Amino acid sequence: MKKKELIVLQDLLGTNKKIAATIRGELGERGILAVNFMSSPGAGKTSLLERIAERLQATAKIAVIEGDIETERDAERIRAIGVPAWQITTGGACHLEAKMIGKVLPSVDAGIDFLFIENVGNLVCPASYELGEHLRCVLLSTPEGDDKPKKYPKAFTTSDCLVLTKVDLLPYLPFDIEKVKKEALGLNPRLKIFVTSAVTGLGVDDLIGYFRSARQELKDRHA
Amino acid sequence: MKKKELIVLQDLLGTNKKIAATIRGELGERGILAVNFMSSPGAGKTSLLERIAERLQATAKIAVIEGDIETERDAERIRAIGVPAWQITTGGACHLEAKMIGKVLPSVDAGIDFLFIENVGNLVCPASYELGEHLRCVLLSTPEGDDKPKKYPKAFTTSDCLVLTKVDLLPYLPFDIEKVKKEALGLNPRLKIFVTSAVTGLGVDDLIGYFRSARQELKDRHA
Repeated sequence: MKKKELIVLQDLLGTNKKIAATIRGELGERGILAVNFMSSPGAGKTSLLERIAERLQATAKIAVIEGDIETERDAERIRAIGVPAWQITTGGACHLEAKMIGKVLPSVDAGIDFLFIENVGNLVCPASYELGEHLRCVLLSTPEGDDKPKKYPKAFTTSDCLVLTKVDLLPYLPFDIEKVKKEALGLNPRLKIFVTSAVTGLGVDDLIGYFRSARQELKDRHA
Repeated sequence: MKKKELIVLQDLLGTNKKIAATIRGELGERGILAVNFMSSPGAGKTSLLERIAERLQATAKIAVIEGDIETERDAERIRAIGVPAWQITTGGACHLEAKMIGKVLPSVDAGIDFLFIENVGNLVCPASYELGEHLRCVLLSTPEGDDKPKKYPKAFTTSDCLVLTKVDLLPYLPFDIEKVKKEALGLNPRLKIFVTSAVTGLGVDDLIGYFRSARQELKDRHA
């Protein structure tokens, strides 16, 4: 990368980090836990969010921000289960940025408990942009293959949790869960790992429990 | 995007396009058909290339350039079936660029017939960077879901062919082939569409036939 390009990129990342820090602080003050979901296209972010939202909305107020290059499809899916959702269409950009979240936040109900942000489907670029989240989750679906963590390391090194999705397909695929866990933990030993299926519901309650604990810790920190 | 950022991006894309045009011309002169494979991580680019290379190398000389952020894993898989392969590791960058191909080309045997380039797994950014290819193929795997073309349009509008992969998994997935074909052709009516499985070999010969015809046309143009 040329010097000129590098300076522009560093400016962009520096500005993004500052905006993200402000958002994180403000949400924390209000007791709202923000979670950033990142993954390849089609790894099952929206399906997992549907399962989480269906169960969690019985006892907590939640909202979802959907990031996509084009279409309202994901926000429509979330709204269909009765959860408020805002669609950000980036019009070509390969990731969400904190300023995009900042623009949507004034519309989001101030009394929510959890804010889930589904990033653009991309296992590379979103990892470089904090959005003001308190937890970052990378999803990896079984059909993508068990060789991915080392090939796309930043999504794994910057995340708090790894969610293995679509494990209902394991009988039909060559995918070694233990190998992936080992490789991911080798990159990032503090990763919490969840094994899930949006079809059978496996692991969804464990993940909800993890988010609930994280929100309690956030509230304790800001108490 | 700010003006300063936009100018840097336009410079980058303009320079890339010029380098790509030079590469495309030089390969064409030598009768080498270059094919750029783009897709999400884990859509099956390497597995499809293995199947193509195994069959095609009986009657043609081929070489493969592998693009990844980290690791030599994909190049090792291709070398294991006796096909020369060069690994480009971008060290973080989310796509290949023409200048990276230009650096590798002097090492590639001048007498090859087909050069396959496997891009970094990313359904967004690679679409903006020509690599000097004569054909661009976007792969979409059945587990990714049939809603992807309109959500990630540029990969579909800039490609010559769409390869649906992993169709052996269709019995276990909600994926409507006809819906995807219709949506993709709505975005780009000139797309050739192939339905394939690297597990069963379905569609691989049709794809090889398509590449052979394209190479013949290329040679005729340069005769």
